[in-house]
Parts: sequence; structure tokens; C-alpha cells
Amino acid sequence: MARLAGVSRATVSYVLNNTDAVRISEPTRRRVREAARELGYVPHAAARSLRAGHSRIVLMPAPAVPVGPLYSRFINDLQWALGRLDYTVVQHGTVGLHGVEAARAWAELRPVAVLAPGSAIGAEGVAVLRRSGARAVVTLGPEAVEGAHALLMDHESVGHRAGAHLYARGRRRIGVVMPAERGLEPFSRPRLAGVRRALDGADGTVTELPLGYDEESAARLAARWRGLGLDGVFAYNDEYAMLLMRALQDEGVRIPEETAVVGADDLMLGRLLRPRLSTVHVDLPAGRDLADLVDRAVRDPAAAPERRPVLGATMVHRESS
Amino acid sequence: MARLAGVSRATVSYVLNNTDAVRISEPTRRRVREAARELGYVPHAAARSLRAGHSRIVLMPAPAVPVGPLYSRFINDLQWALGRLDYTVVQHGTVGLHGVEAARAWAELRPVAVLAPGSAIGAEGVAVLRRSGARAVVTLGPEAVEGAHALLMDHESVGHRAGAHLYARGRRRIGVVMPAERGLEPFSRPRLAGVRRALDGADGTVTELPLGYDEESAARLAARWRGLGLDGVFAYNDEYAMLLMRALQDEGVRIPEETAVVGADDLMLGRLLRPRLSTVHVDLPAGRDLADLVDRAVRDPAAAPERRPVLGATMVHRESS
Repeated sequence: MARLAGVSRATVSYVLNNTDAVRISEPTRRRVREAARELGYVPHAAARSLRAGHSRIVLMPAPAVPVGPLYSRFINDLQWALGRLDYTVVQHGTVGLHGVEAARAWAELRPVAVLAPGSAIGAEGVAVLRRSGARAVVTLGPEAVEGAHALLMDHESVGHRAGAHLYARGRRRIGVVMPAERGLEPFSRPRLAGVRRALDGADGTVTELPLGYDEESAARLAARWRGLGLDGVFAYNDEYAMLLMRALQDEGVRIPEETAVVGADDLMLGRLLRPRLSTVHVDLPAGRDLADLVDRAVRDPAAAPERRPVLGATMVHRESS
Repeated sequence: MARLAGVSRATVSYVLNNTDAVRISEPTRRRVREAARELGYVPHAAARSLRAGHSRIVLMPAPAVPVGPLYSRFINDLQWALGRLDYTVVQHGTVGLHGVEAARAWAELRPVAVLAPGSAIGAEGVAVLRRSGARAVVTLGPEAVEGAHALLMDHESVGHRAGAHLYARGRRRIGVVMPAERGLEPFSRPRLAGVRRALDGADGTVTELPLGYDEESAARLAARWRGLGLDGVFAYNDEYAMLLMRALQDEGVRIPEETAVVGADDLMLGRLLRPRLSTVHVDLPAGRDLADLVDRAVRDPAAAPERRPVLGATMVHRESS
């Protein structure tokens, strides 16, 4: 490559490693970069990270549960914004890994920053990552973890909106669907707590309704619906709402007259149902804002942990409530 | 660590790097590993990869389009199976990257193997990855790419099942929904070709129906439906089928009497519709089989590229057709 560019091997190394210690003219830098391109040179992230002590890798756990279009768009925006800041976003599976074990597996990649659900990593996991050289750890989720910045995604407010809406519509005996599927507790527990808070001190009751995401479970719940005496239900999200609403309709339960149904996430399919599904619209943070926070944290790894609430929740009233 | 384990520093290094060149007793190895665990030692993937010339990283592009539960489960299975074989699965965003550019970005991580859609990478991208030390490149998708193993996911058969079914049900003027959303052509084109093949030489017609995934587009298409004179439609997948079916029902089009509707992917929501949605069930390969293929390819990087069809498609007849 040095021969092709007509410069010394040291110069090639300085240019490709973006070393500022040595003054090299812009035309020379350009010549080296063109030669590198012509020869199909690919920098070695590992070698760069050993030299620099850290990489430009931002590591995010790939979600193990199916992600909806909302979260998917958020991830895409974030990747794009971090890419613009010259970071490489890498997602690492979490299947079968938890806490410190997960943190160790992630630390092997020597990421400069890690974004992770706080519940997946814990304070000890944060410490492992910081020790391995991660300059920033940012948790996403309802809880803050010691030593990490926190983007507080508090799903409690989602449940609170739904509960307050049902109460305002005159409903007093409110059911809350709790998905039987694993991995959803970090969302379903705070949503339930939000409904309880909305009803706190008021003349209403809250009943937990465990429900598996399959027709049989929904049919079983619907068959004993009238015995439960509920006049409103917050169904965790739009998909569970759709499943339950169909089963209730098949049982002849009139919606919203007998039971009001509210979902969450504002998926398009909710608008396609009859009656159209009332839902809680959830706003995730803008990818660019989050990318800026990561970048600031990487530049100043000793800064005090930030805690920032980022989840917006607004009620979308349609025909099912 | 050497002091804690009561051995020499060289011994620590031999054990942690799994060097076979030096004979070290199993109790000593165990002592070193325990000391490493106690001290919170995390191996450095980068350093290991520089030593070994390659890493244990298997890189997959993270899908840019929202993934359904089907694909999501496939990815989880695959990660689990590769993890059992001591690989680290890492997903890399593809936002704004294509072909050689994408391959270069991926090559920086020096993966030992790369799984990627053939359309995202191309033959030149395969060459870049192989030059950077990837021992195996496996494409997933309808096409094979030079120099790479191919798991042929041929969506043509999905369309063929739907077309043959509609024809067998007496439909002759068949519409095929083509999503307006970007990034779906690698699936929608072959599905259309499959419908055409099913009707080839028979007394039927195939009409392409561009459709955006929103209610307004669906309403516009439904408003001119009777003018199109179609008696059957293959709606790309269950979500587009649900969108179109709702708009047709709102226009008073009777399903299946006037128009039979068939989706694909066999999502649960299709069973919740009335009439229940006929669909093409798609089988993805088992994660374990794919993991074995990757492992074989890594062990024998000079082996001739394998081409293996892996997508199964079967018709699920319900009430909408």
C-alpha cells in the first residue's frame, strides 16, 4: 500500500489510524486512503481497540421477545444516529444469559458503551462492564442501576393512562391482563401498578387476569367473564386486547356496553377492529437524543449518572371504551 | 492472578488462552480459572482474535424491517444453538449500508462467519469478508451468491401455494398485493412469480396490486375493487391481508363469495378475523441445523459452497377462500 501511495509505511499507518501526533498533509492522507480503498483494505476493529484501549463499538442486547414496529423503528433511528457519530452498533443475543454472566459475555467485545435493560444487567453487571473498559453504560427500562446512566422507560404511566380513562368512562370493576408469556414482566408489572394508582382511593377494584397468547386461553377466560363481573379491562397491549376482544365477542359480550376494552402501543391493527380499539399511544425517545447522550457519556466517563424519564404515554380514545 | 492461583504468570497466560502447546495439569488449570473468576477477569475477544487470526464471532445483520414472531423465534433458536457451540452471535445494523460498504463495516469486527441476505451483500461483499478472514459466509434468501454457502429461502413456493389454492377454489382473475414499503421486494417479487407460475398455461389472469401499509391506501384500492373484476387475491402476508380484507368489507365486498383472500405467514391474528383468514404457513429452518452448517463451514473454509433449499410452504385453508 505504501508503494502504491508513494509514501513510507509509517505514513500509511499514521493515516489509517487517524493519528494526530504526526503532521501529514491532506493530499498525502487522501493518497493513502485511495490506495487503501483500491487494495480493499479493511481496518481491524480488534487491533484498533487494543491500540486505543477501547473500541467504537456500542453494544445493545438484541431483544429476545418479538419486537413490535414501534421498538423496531426506535432501534433503527438509534443505529443511524450512532453511525453518524462514527460508532458501530452491534447487537448481542441475550438468549440464556443474565446479569453478570451476560455482562461478561458482552465485555469480551470491549464495547465503548453498552445500552441494556437494567433488569438484564444489574449493578454487578455494570461494574464488570466498566472494569472491562466500557466508558458508558446506559440502562433502558423502568429502573435505574447503580453506576449506570438511566433512560427511565416507566411503563407505570401507560397503565395509569388506561386506568384513569376507564374510570372517567364510568367503569369501576377493572380487569388487567397479565401475559403468561415469559420476559414481559418488566412491562406488565408496572402497567398493572399504574392502573392500581389510577384507582387508588377511588370506588373501584382492580383484578389481575393471567392470559396466555393463544385462542384457547382467551376462550377459557371469556367463558367465565360474566362471573367475574368486570365492566372494563386494560389488556396489556393491542395484541392481547385483540385476542381477548375476539373471544369476548364470540361469547356474546357486547363491547363497550358490557365491558370496555383498552389496549396499548397504538398498533395499526387496533384501528382495523370493529369496534375500533381504544389504546395508549407510547412515545419512545428519539434515536438522535439517545445517541447524543451516549456520545456525551463516552467523552466524559466520570460524569455523574444521568436519570432521565423518556417514555411518553397518551390515551387514544376510539370505540371499544 | 498468578499470586492468587500460586502459579507463574506464564502458566496463567497458557491456561486462559487455552494453549495446548504446554502440558498443564487439570488441577492447576482449575486453580487458575477459579482465581480468574474471583478477580472478575474477562477475556478480551479482540486480543483472542488477533492471536488466533480470527474470532468466535458469528455476525448477522439485524433486520431493518420489523420482524414477525416467526423470524424472531428463528433468530433466537439460532443464537442459542450457536452459543452451545461456543460462538458469540452478534447482530450488526444495516441501516444505510449496502453491498461492499456493508461488508467492509462488518469485516472490521473480524467475524469467523457471517450470515447475511444474499441481496444485502453481493459477490464482491463476500470476497471482502473472506479476505478479511471470515472462514464462512452463508447467505439467507432466494438467491445464491458466488463464494458463499446458500440457504435458499425461496419465497416463490409461498406464492405458488397461494395461487394453486385460489385456482383450485375456482378463482380465475387473481390479484397479488405488492407492498409499497421498501425492503420487501426480496420477498414480494418471488411470491408474485410463484402465483404466476401456478396460473401458467391455465385460463386465469394475474394482476399486480401496489398497496401501502395504511388505511387510506387500502380504502382507495377497495373503492375501485369492483372495477378490477378480481375474484381472488393473494395479499403478500397476513398483515396486508387483514388490512385489505377490512377495507373490502367496509366497501361491502363479500368474502369469500365475491373475492377470496389468502395471506401468508400463518400469524395468530388471521385466526381472530371473521371470516378466518386462509394463509400459507411458512417453515423456517431449525436453528440447530443452521448452526451445524455454520460450524462445519468454519472448520472447513475451503469446502465447496453448499446450496440448500430450506423454506417449507403449506396451505392452511380457513374461511376467507
